[in-house]
Amino acid sequence: MTITLDAVEGLPEIQPGDDVAALVTRHAGSVRSGDVVVVAQKVVSKAEGRLRDLSTVSASPRARRLAKHLAQDPRFVQLVLDESVRIVRQDRILIVETPHGFICANAGVDRSNVDGADVVTLLPLDPDGSARALRNRIGEIGGADVAVIISDTFGRPWRIGQVNAALGVFGMAAVVDHRGEPDDFGTPLQSTLIAVADEIAAATGLVMGKARRVPAVVVRGIDGVDGRSGSGRELIRPPELDLFR
Amino acid sequence: MTITLDAVEGLPEIQPGDDVAALVTRHAGSVRSGDVVVVAQKVVSKAEGRLRDLSTVSASPRARRLAKHLAQDPRFVQLVLDESVRIVRQDRILIVETPHGFICANAGVDRSNVDGADVVTLLPLDPDGSARALRNRIGEIGGADVAVIISDTFGRPWRIGQVNAALGVFGMAAVVDHRGEPDDFGTPLQSTLIAVADEIAAATGLVMGKARRVPAVVVRGIDGVDGRSGSGRELIRPPELDLFR
Repeated sequence: MTITLDAVEGLPEIQPGDDVAALVTRHAGSVRSGDVVVVAQKVVSKAEGRLRDLSTVSASPRARRLAKHLAQDPRFVQLVLDESVRIVRQDRILIVETPHGFICANAGVDRSNVDGADVVTLLPLDPDGSARALRNRIGEIGGADVAVIISDTFGRPWRIGQVNAALGVFGMAAVVDHRGEPDDFGTPLQSTLIAVADEIAAATGLVMGKARRVPAVVVRGIDGVDGRSGSGRELIRPPELDLFR
Repeated sequence: MTITLDAVEGLPEIQPGDDVAALVTRHAGSVRSGDVVVVAQKVVSKAEGRLRDLSTVSASPRARRLAKHLAQDPRFVQLVLDESVRIVRQDRILIVETPHGFICANAGVDRSNVDGADVVTLLPLDPDGSARALRNRIGEIGGADVAVIISDTFGRPWRIGQVNAALGVFGMAAVVDHRGEPDDFGTPLQSTLIAVADEIAAATGLVMGKARRVPAVVVRGIDGVDGRSGSGRELIRPPELDLFR
Protein backbone atom coordinates (compact mmCIF):
# COMPACT_ATOMS: atom_id res chain seq x y z
CA MET A 1 0.00 0.00 0.00
CA THR A 2 1.40 3.38 -1.04
CA ILE A 3 0.09 6.87 -0.31
CA THR A 4 1.44 9.95 -2.09
CA LEU A 5 1.13 13.60 -1.16
CA ASP A 6 1.64 16.13 -3.95
CA ALA A 7 1.96 19.85 -3.26
CA VAL A 8 -0.18 22.15 -5.39
CA GLU A 9 2.14 25.08 -6.03
CA GLY A 10 2.20 28.32 -7.98
CA LEU A 11 -1.25 29.63 -7.10
CA PRO A 12 -1.65 33.39 -7.11
CA GLU A 13 -2.66 35.25 -3.95
CA ILE A 14 -6.34 34.38 -3.40
CA GLN A 15 -8.91 37.18 -3.53
CA PRO A 16 -12.53 37.16 -2.32
CA GLY A 17 -14.69 35.46 -4.94
CA ASP A 18 -11.83 33.49 -6.53
CA ASP A 19 -12.64 30.03 -7.87
CA VAL A 20 -10.31 28.01 -5.63
CA ALA A 21 -11.39 24.69 -7.16
CA ALA A 22 -10.43 25.91 -10.63
CA LEU A 23 -7.08 27.26 -9.42
CA VAL A 24 -6.27 24.03 -7.57
CA THR A 25 -7.30 21.88 -10.56
CA ARG A 26 -5.18 23.97 -12.92
CA HIS A 27 -2.05 23.97 -10.70
CA ALA A 28 -2.23 20.35 -9.52
CA GLY A 29 -0.21 17.83 -11.53
CA SER A 30 -3.40 15.80 -11.80
CA VAL A 31 -6.59 15.27 -9.85
CA ARG A 32 -8.24 11.86 -10.23
CA SER A 33 -11.33 10.16 -8.85
CA GLY A 34 -10.53 8.70 -5.44
CA ASP A 35 -8.04 11.46 -4.55
CA VAL A 36 -8.39 13.54 -1.42
CA VAL A 37 -7.78 17.24 -2.06
CA VAL A 38 -6.76 19.06 1.12
CA VAL A 39 -7.14 22.84 0.99
CA ALA A 40 -5.74 25.19 3.62
CA GLN A 41 -8.34 27.13 5.59
CA LYS A 42 -6.47 30.33 4.83
CA VAL A 43 -7.22 30.27 1.11
CA VAL A 44 -10.81 29.12 1.64
CA SER A 45 -11.35 32.00 4.07
CA LYS A 46 -9.83 34.50 1.64
CA ALA A 47 -11.96 33.26 -1.26
CA GLU A 48 -15.08 33.37 0.92
CA GLY A 49 -14.29 36.91 2.06
CA ARG A 50 -13.79 35.86 5.68
CA LEU A 51 -11.35 38.75 6.24
CA ARG A 52 -11.46 41.60 8.70
CA ASP A 53 -9.42 44.78 8.92
CA LEU A 54 -8.57 45.47 12.56
CA SER A 55 -8.81 49.20 11.87
CA THR A 56 -12.59 48.75 11.49
CA VAL A 57 -13.00 46.90 14.81
CA SER A 58 -13.82 48.70 18.04
CA ALA A 59 -12.98 46.80 21.20
CA SER A 60 -15.51 46.40 24.01
CA PRO A 61 -14.49 46.99 27.63
CA ARG A 62 -14.37 43.20 28.09
CA ALA A 63 -12.02 42.77 25.09
CA ARG A 64 -9.82 45.60 26.42
CA ARG A 65 -9.56 44.00 29.84
CA LEU A 66 -8.70 40.61 28.34
CA ALA A 67 -6.24 42.18 25.89
CA LYS A 68 -4.41 43.91 28.72
CA HIS A 69 -4.19 40.64 30.66
CA LEU A 70 -2.88 38.81 27.56
CA ALA A 71 -0.72 41.67 26.20
CA GLN A 72 -2.56 41.54 22.89
CA ASP A 73 -4.26 43.98 20.53
CA PRO A 74 -7.76 44.72 21.96
CA ARG A 75 -9.25 44.76 18.46
CA PHE A 76 -7.83 41.29 17.78
CA VAL A 77 -9.24 40.04 21.08
CA GLN A 78 -12.62 41.54 20.15
CA LEU A 79 -12.67 39.51 16.93
CA VAL A 80 -11.72 36.35 18.85
CA LEU A 81 -14.63 36.96 21.23
CA ASP A 82 -16.95 37.61 18.28
CA GLU A 83 -15.91 34.25 16.76
CA SER A 84 -16.31 32.32 20.05
CA VAL A 85 -19.16 30.82 22.00
CA ARG A 86 -17.08 30.15 25.12
CA ILE A 87 -13.62 30.80 26.54
CA VAL A 88 -11.95 27.52 27.59
CA ARG A 89 -8.69 29.03 28.91
CA GLN A 90 -7.39 32.60 29.10
CA ASP A 91 -3.83 32.26 30.26
CA ARG A 92 -1.11 33.62 27.92
CA ILE A 93 -3.39 32.75 25.03
CA LEU A 94 -7.13 32.57 24.40
CA ILE A 95 -8.33 29.02 23.88
CA VAL A 96 -11.97 29.10 22.92
CA GLU A 97 -14.82 27.06 21.53
CA THR A 98 -16.00 28.29 18.14
CA PRO A 99 -19.61 28.17 16.92
CA HIS A 100 -18.60 25.07 14.90
CA GLY A 101 -17.51 23.33 18.12
CA PHE A 102 -13.75 23.50 17.47
CA ILE A 103 -11.59 24.19 20.49
CA CYS A 104 -8.58 26.15 19.36
CA ALA A 105 -6.39 29.17 19.98
CA ASN A 106 -7.84 32.56 19.07
CA ALA A 107 -10.92 30.99 17.42
CA GLY A 108 -8.75 30.51 14.34
CA VAL A 109 -8.44 34.28 13.82
CA ASP A 110 -5.02 34.61 12.19
CA ARG A 111 -2.71 37.39 11.10
CA SER A 112 -0.17 35.29 9.17
CA ASN A 113 0.06 35.14 5.38
CA VAL A 114 -2.41 37.96 4.87
CA ASP A 115 -1.74 41.02 2.73
CA GLY A 116 -2.06 44.09 4.93
CA ALA A 117 -0.66 44.63 8.42
CA ASP A 118 -4.09 44.90 10.05
CA VAL A 119 -5.96 42.27 8.03
CA VAL A 120 -6.80 38.92 9.62
CA THR A 121 -8.62 35.82 8.41
CA LEU A 122 -11.54 34.20 10.21
CA LEU A 123 -12.47 30.52 9.91
CA PRO A 124 -15.01 29.64 7.20
CA LEU A 125 -18.57 29.84 8.52
CA ASP A 126 -19.38 26.30 7.34
CA PRO A 127 -16.22 24.30 6.63
CA ASP A 128 -18.20 21.19 5.61
CA GLY A 129 -20.16 23.34 3.17
CA SER A 130 -16.89 24.77 1.84
CA ALA A 131 -15.51 21.25 1.40
CA ARG A 132 -18.67 20.11 -0.36
CA ALA A 133 -18.72 23.10 -2.70
CA LEU A 134 -15.04 22.61 -3.59
CA ARG A 135 -15.63 18.88 -4.17
CA ASN A 136 -18.58 19.50 -6.46
CA ARG A 137 -16.79 22.27 -8.38
CA ILE A 138 -13.68 20.09 -8.88
CA GLY A 139 -15.99 17.43 -10.32
CA GLU A 140 -17.66 19.98 -12.64
CA ILE A 141 -14.32 21.21 -13.95
CA GLY A 142 -12.37 18.02 -14.45
CA GLY A 143 -14.82 15.19 -13.84
CA ALA A 144 -12.89 13.78 -10.88
CA ASP A 145 -14.90 12.35 -8.01
CA VAL A 146 -12.77 13.41 -5.01
CA ALA A 147 -13.06 14.05 -1.31
CA VAL A 148 -12.12 17.49 0.04
CA ILE A 149 -10.75 18.37 3.47
CA ILE A 150 -10.37 21.95 4.71
CA SER A 151 -7.42 22.01 7.12
CA ASP A 152 -5.93 24.36 9.68
CA THR A 153 -2.99 24.12 12.08
CA PHE A 154 -4.04 23.52 15.69
CA GLY A 155 -2.05 23.33 18.90
CA ARG A 156 -2.65 20.42 21.29
CA PRO A 157 -2.70 19.97 25.06
CA TRP A 158 0.23 17.99 26.47
CA ARG A 159 2.30 18.11 23.28
CA ILE A 160 4.49 20.80 21.79
CA GLY A 161 3.96 22.10 18.30
CA GLN A 162 1.09 22.49 15.94
CA VAL A 163 -0.32 19.89 13.57
CA ASN A 164 -2.75 20.25 10.70
CA ALA A 165 -6.28 19.15 11.57
CA ALA A 166 -9.45 18.70 9.50
CA LEU A 167 -12.10 21.42 9.91
CA GLY A 168 -14.40 20.54 7.03
CA VAL A 169 -14.76 17.19 5.30
CA PHE A 170 -16.85 16.01 2.39
CA GLY A 171 -16.63 12.90 0.23
CA MET A 172 -15.28 10.43 2.79
CA ALA A 173 -15.89 9.42 6.39
CA ALA A 174 -13.85 11.60 8.74
CA VAL A 175 -13.64 8.87 11.38
CA VAL A 176 -13.41 5.12 10.78
CA ASP A 177 -14.77 2.79 13.44
CA HIS A 178 -12.87 -0.48 13.84
CA ARG A 179 -14.50 -1.41 17.15
CA GLY A 180 -15.46 -5.05 17.25
CA GLU A 181 -13.32 -6.02 14.25
CA PRO A 182 -10.87 -8.83 14.98
CA ASP A 183 -7.19 -7.98 15.40
CA ASP A 184 -4.42 -10.19 13.98
CA PHE A 185 -5.16 -12.80 16.65
CA GLY A 186 -8.95 -12.72 16.43
CA THR A 187 -9.47 -10.59 19.55
CA PRO A 188 -12.09 -7.90 18.93
CA LEU A 189 -10.56 -4.40 18.90
CA GLN A 190 -11.89 -2.34 21.78
CA SER A 191 -11.39 1.38 21.37
CA THR A 192 -10.37 1.93 17.82
CA LEU A 193 -11.95 4.93 16.24
CA ILE A 194 -9.37 6.27 13.79
CA ALA A 195 -9.50 10.00 12.97
CA VAL A 196 -8.63 9.43 9.32
CA ALA A 197 -9.38 12.98 8.16
CA ASP A 198 -7.13 14.39 10.88
CA GLU A 199 -4.37 11.96 9.90
CA ILE A 200 -4.69 13.07 6.28
CA ALA A 201 -4.68 16.74 7.31
CA ALA A 202 -1.63 16.18 9.53
CA ALA A 203 0.18 14.47 6.66
CA THR A 204 -0.41 17.46 4.39
CA GLY A 205 1.12 19.74 7.02
CA LEU A 206 4.43 18.18 5.97
CA VAL A 207 3.93 19.52 2.45
CA MET A 208 2.18 22.80 3.22
CA GLY A 209 4.82 24.04 5.64
CA LYS A 210 3.96 27.49 6.88
CA ALA A 211 6.15 29.93 5.03
CA ARG A 212 5.73 28.15 1.67
CA ARG A 213 2.92 28.99 -0.68
CA VAL A 214 1.34 25.51 -0.78
CA PRO A 215 -2.38 26.08 -0.23
CA ALA A 216 -3.47 22.61 -1.31
CA VAL A 217 -2.22 19.05 -1.45
CA VAL A 218 -3.47 16.12 -3.51
CA VAL A 219 -3.43 12.88 -1.50
CA ARG A 220 -3.63 9.64 -3.45
CA GLY A 221 -4.10 6.10 -2.18
CA ILE A 222 -6.65 6.66 0.58
CA ASP A 223 -9.36 4.03 1.03
CA GLY A 224 -12.95 5.09 1.45
CA VAL A 225 -13.41 8.10 -0.83
CA ASP A 226 -17.09 7.77 -1.70
CA GLY A 227 -17.86 11.31 -2.83
CA ARG A 228 -20.94 11.69 -0.66
CA SER A 229 -20.43 11.05 3.08
CA GLY A 230 -18.39 12.78 5.73
CA SER A 231 -18.36 15.82 7.98
CA GLY A 232 -15.79 17.59 10.09
CA ARG A 233 -18.35 17.38 12.91
CA GLU A 234 -17.56 13.65 13.27
CA LEU A 235 -14.20 14.75 14.69
CA ILE A 236 -15.62 16.98 17.43
CA ARG A 237 -15.85 15.23 20.78
CA PRO A 238 -19.23 15.84 22.41
CA PRO A 239 -18.82 17.79 25.68
CA GLU A 240 -20.28 14.91 27.72
CA LEU A 241 -17.49 12.62 26.45
CA ASP A 242 -14.73 15.19 26.96
CA LEU A 243 -12.72 15.14 30.17
CA PHE A 244 -10.72 18.26 29.33
CA ARG A 245 -13.13 21.15 28.75
CA MET B 1 7.19 18.61 -3.55
CA THR B 2 6.04 15.01 -3.18
CA ILE B 3 6.02 12.76 -0.14
CA THR B 4 5.39 9.02 -0.38
CA LEU B 5 4.41 6.55 2.31
CA ASP B 6 5.13 2.88 1.63
CA ALA B 7 3.77 0.13 3.85
CA VAL B 8 6.26 -2.51 4.98
CA GLU B 9 4.25 -5.70 4.81
CA GLY B 10 4.69 -9.42 5.29
CA LEU B 11 6.69 -9.40 8.51
CA PRO B 12 6.30 -12.44 10.74
CA GLU B 13 4.91 -12.09 14.26
CA ILE B 14 7.67 -10.40 16.28
CA GLN B 15 9.26 -12.31 19.17
CA PRO B 16 11.43 -10.95 22.00
CA GLY B 17 14.98 -10.52 20.72
CA ASP B 18 14.02 -10.29 17.04
CA ASP B 19 16.10 -7.97 14.84
CA VAL B 20 13.33 -5.56 13.80
CA ALA B 21 15.70 -3.42 11.72
CA ALA B 22 16.71 -6.46 9.65
CA LEU B 23 13.09 -7.55 9.19
CA VAL B 24 12.00 -4.07 8.15
CA THR B 25 14.94 -3.67 5.76
CA ARG B 26 14.21 -7.06 4.19
CA HIS B 27 10.47 -6.47 3.76
CA ALA B 28 10.60 -2.82 2.66
CA GLY B 29 10.66 -2.19 -1.09
CA SER B 30 13.75 -0.06 -0.50
CA VAL B 31 15.25 2.03 2.28
CA ARG B 32 17.41 4.96 1.19
CA SER B 33 19.37 7.69 2.92
CA GLY B 34 17.03 10.55 3.81
CA ASP B 35 14.04 8.28 4.37
CA VAL B 36 12.12 8.27 7.63
CA VAL B 37 11.30 4.76 8.85
CA VAL B 38 8.32 4.76 11.19
CA VAL B 39 7.97 1.63 13.33
CA ALA B 40 4.88 0.82 15.40
CA GLN B 41 5.44 0.75 19.15
CA LYS B 42 3.80 -2.65 19.30
CA VAL B 43 6.56 -4.43 17.37
CA VAL B 44 9.33 -2.53 19.19
CA SER B 45 7.79 -3.50 22.53
CA LYS B 46 7.51 -7.14 21.48
CA ALA B 47 11.12 -7.26 20.25
CA GLU B 48 12.31 -5.60 23.46
CA GLY B 49 10.35 -8.08 25.58
CA ARG B 50 8.07 -5.39 27.00
CA LEU B 51 5.27 -7.93 27.46
CA ARG B 52 3.39 -8.96 30.57
CA ASP B 53 1.04 -11.85 31.22
CA LEU B 54 -1.86 -10.66 33.35
CA SER B 55 -1.98 -14.07 35.05
CA THR B 56 1.34 -13.18 36.74
CA VAL B 57 0.08 -9.81 38.07
CA SER B 58 -1.49 -9.43 41.50
CA ALA B 59 -3.62 -6.34 41.95
CA SER B 60 -3.17 -4.06 44.96
CA PRO B 61 -6.18 -2.81 46.92
CA ARG B 62 -5.84 0.55 45.10
CA ALA B 63 -5.88 -1.15 41.69
CA ARG B 64 -8.91 -3.19 42.73
CA ARG B 65 -10.80 -0.09 43.86
CA LEU B 66 -9.99 1.74 40.63
CA ALA B 67 -10.81 -1.31 38.53
CA LYS B 68 -14.23 -1.58 40.15
CA HIS B 69 -14.90 2.12 39.48
CA LEU B 70 -13.79 1.72 35.84
CA ALA B 71 -15.27 -1.77 35.27
CA GLN B 72 -11.86 -3.07 34.19
CA ASP B 73 -9.62 -6.03 35.00
CA PRO B 74 -7.83 -5.21 38.31
CA ARG B 75 -4.61 -6.81 37.01
CA PHE B 76 -4.69 -4.58 33.93
CA VAL B 77 -5.25 -1.52 36.12
CA GLN B 78 -2.31 -2.62 38.30
CA LEU B 79 -0.02 -2.64 35.25
CA VAL B 80 -1.28 0.80 34.20
CA LEU B 81 -0.48 2.13 37.70
CA ASP B 82 2.96 0.47 37.56
CA GLU B 83 3.65 2.24 34.23
CA SER B 84 2.43 5.66 35.46
CA VAL B 85 3.85 8.48 37.54
CA ARG B 86 0.51 10.28 37.91
CA ILE B 87 -3.18 9.84 37.14
CA VAL B 88 -4.47 12.79 35.10
CA ARG B 89 -8.11 11.64 34.84
CA GLN B 90 -9.94 8.54 36.09
CA ASP B 91 -13.38 8.79 34.57
CA ARG B 92 -14.46 5.92 32.27
CA ILE B 93 -10.79 5.51 31.34
CA LEU B 94 -7.42 6.00 33.02
CA ILE B 95 -5.50 8.89 31.50
CA VAL B 96 -2.05 9.00 33.05
CA GLU B 97 1.39 10.50 32.74
CA THR B 98 4.05 7.90 31.97
CA PRO B 99 7.65 8.04 33.24
CA HIS B 100 8.60 9.34 29.76
CA GLY B 101 6.20 12.29 30.19
CA PHE B 102 3.56 11.08 27.73
CA ILE B 103 -0.04 11.71 28.71
CA CYS B 104 -2.13 8.91 27.31
CA ALA B 105 -4.81 6.34 28.03
CA ASN B 106 -3.78 3.30 30.11
CA ALA B 107 -0.08 4.33 30.02
CA GLY B 108 0.08 2.68 26.61
CA VAL B 109 -0.59 -0.76 28.11
CA ASP B 110 -2.42 -2.54 25.30
CA ARG B 111 -4.14 -5.87 24.76
CA SER B 112 -4.66 -5.62 20.98
CA ASN B 113 -2.62 -7.57 18.42
CA VAL B 114 -0.91 -9.69 21.03
CA ASP B 115 -0.78 -13.49 20.93
CA GLY B 116 -2.39 -14.80 24.11
CA ALA B 117 -5.60 -13.68 25.77
CA ASP B 118 -3.87 -12.37 28.91
CA VAL B 119 -0.72 -10.91 27.34
CA VAL B 120 -0.33 -7.15 27.03
CA THR B 121 2.40 -4.88 25.68
CA LEU B 122 3.99 -2.02 27.62
CA LEU B 123 5.58 1.03 26.02
CA PRO B 124 9.34 0.80 25.34
CA LEU B 125 11.36 2.00 28.34
CA ASP B 126 13.35 4.46 26.20
CA PRO B 127 11.64 5.14 22.85
CA ASP B 128 14.39 7.54 21.72
CA GLY B 129 16.96 4.85 22.48
CA SER B 130 14.84 2.33 20.53
CA ALA B 131 14.68 4.76 17.59
CA ARG B 132 18.42 5.37 17.71
CA ALA B 133 19.24 1.65 17.87
CA LEU B 134 16.94 0.89 14.92
CA ARG B 135 18.43 3.77 12.93
CA ASN B 136 21.97 2.60 13.55
CA ARG B 137 21.15 -1.03 12.80
CA ILE B 138 19.38 -0.09 9.52
CA GLY B 139 22.55 1.79 8.55
CA GLU B 140 24.73 -1.23 9.43
CA ILE B 141 22.61 -3.59 7.35
CA GLY B 142 21.95 -1.59 4.23
CA GLY B 143 24.09 1.55 4.51
CA ALA B 144 21.10 3.92 4.48
CA ASP B 145 21.29 7.01 6.67
CA VAL B 146 17.69 7.32 7.86
CA ALA B 147 15.65 8.79 10.68
CA VAL B 148 13.48 6.50 12.78
CA ILE B 149 10.24 7.33 14.59
CA ILE B 150 8.54 4.95 17.04
CA SER B 151 4.81 5.63 16.85
CA ASP B 152 1.69 4.77 18.82
CA THR B 153 -1.98 5.68 18.49
CA PHE B 154 -3.14 8.28 21.02
CA GLY B 155 -6.53 9.77 21.74
CA ARG B 156 -6.89 13.53 22.03
CA PRO B 157 -8.94 15.92 24.15
CA TRP B 158 -11.69 17.76 22.28
CA ARG B 159 -11.53 15.58 19.19
CA ILE B 160 -12.91 12.15 18.42
CA GLY B 161 -10.71 9.33 17.25
CA GLN B 162 -7.14 8.29 17.64
CA VAL B 163 -4.17 9.47 15.61
CA ASN B 164 -0.66 8.09 15.43
CA ALA B 165 1.86 10.14 17.44
CA ALA B 166 5.66 9.99 17.76
CA LEU B 167 7.01 8.47 20.98
CA GLY B 168 10.67 8.12 20.06
CA VAL B 169 12.59 10.03 17.42
CA PHE B 170 16.16 9.86 16.19
CA GLY B 171 17.82 11.22 13.06
CA MET B 172 15.74 14.38 12.56
CA ALA B 173 14.34 17.25 14.61
CA ALA B 174 10.94 16.29 16.04
CA VAL B 175 9.76 19.92 16.11
CA VAL B 176 10.64 22.67 13.62
CA ASP B 177 10.63 26.26 14.82
CA HIS B 178 9.50 28.81 12.24
CA ARG B 179 9.05 31.65 14.73
CA GLY B 180 10.46 34.89 13.43
CA GLU B 181 10.68 33.69 9.83
CA PRO B 182 8.85 35.93 7.34
CA ASP B 183 5.53 34.77 5.92
CA ASP B 184 4.58 35.32 2.25
CA PHE B 185 4.11 39.04 2.95
CA GLY B 186 7.23 39.58 5.06
CA THR B 187 5.44 39.55 8.41
CA PRO B 188 7.35 37.50 10.98
CA LEU B 189 5.50 34.32 11.95
CA GLN B 190 4.50 34.39 15.59
CA SER B 191 3.62 31.01 17.02
CA THR B 192 4.76 28.47 14.52
CA LEU B 193 6.35 25.43 16.04
CA ILE B 194 5.46 22.53 13.77
CA ALA B 195 5.35 19.05 15.30
CA VAL B 196 6.88 17.41 12.24
CA ALA B 197 7.48 14.01 13.84
CA ASP B 198 3.84 13.85 14.98
CA GLU B 199 2.68 14.82 11.48
CA ILE B 200 4.82 12.03 10.01
CA ALA B 201 3.52 9.55 12.58
CA ALA B 202 -0.08 10.62 11.90
CA ALA B 203 0.48 10.17 8.17
CA THR B 204 1.69 6.60 8.69
CA GLY B 205 -1.48 5.84 10.65
CA LEU B 206 -3.21 5.94 7.26
CA VAL B 207 -1.03 3.06 6.08
CA MET B 208 -0.72 1.09 9.30
CA GLY B 209 -4.43 0.87 9.95
CA LYS B 210 -5.14 -1.15 13.04
CA ALA B 211 -6.27 -4.57 11.92
CA ARG B 212 -3.67 -4.81 9.13
CA ARG B 213 -0.24 -6.24 9.73
CA VAL B 214 1.74 -3.13 8.74
CA PRO B 215 4.26 -2.61 11.53
CA ALA B 216 6.43 -0.11 9.65
CA VAL B 217 6.19 2.54 6.96
CA VAL B 218 8.94 4.10 4.85
CA VAL B 219 8.35 7.84 4.35
CA ARG B 220 10.24 9.51 1.52
CA GLY B 221 10.55 13.21 0.72
CA ILE B 222 10.86 14.68 4.21
CA ASP B 223 13.25 17.61 4.67
CA GLY B 224 15.65 17.63 7.56
CA VAL B 225 16.77 14.02 8.00
CA ASP B 226 20.26 14.55 9.41
CA GLY B 227 20.87 11.17 11.04
CA ARG B 228 21.98 12.61 14.38
CA SER B 229 19.53 15.01 16.06
CA GLY B 230 16.06 14.60 17.44
CA SER B 231 14.15 13.27 20.41
CA GLY B 232 10.56 12.44 21.19
CA ARG B 233 11.02 14.60 24.29
CA GLU B 234 10.87 17.72 22.09
CA LEU B 235 7.18 16.91 21.61
CA ILE B 236 6.31 16.81 25.31
CA ARG B 237 4.86 20.06 26.58
CA PRO B 238 6.50 21.06 29.87
CA PRO B 239 3.92 21.11 32.71
CA GLU B 240 4.45 24.85 33.30
CA LEU B 241 3.39 25.54 29.68
CA ASP B 242 0.44 23.18 29.76
CA LEU B 243 -3.02 24.54 30.57
CA PHE B 244 -4.72 21.14 30.55
CA ARG B 245 -3.01 18.90 33.13
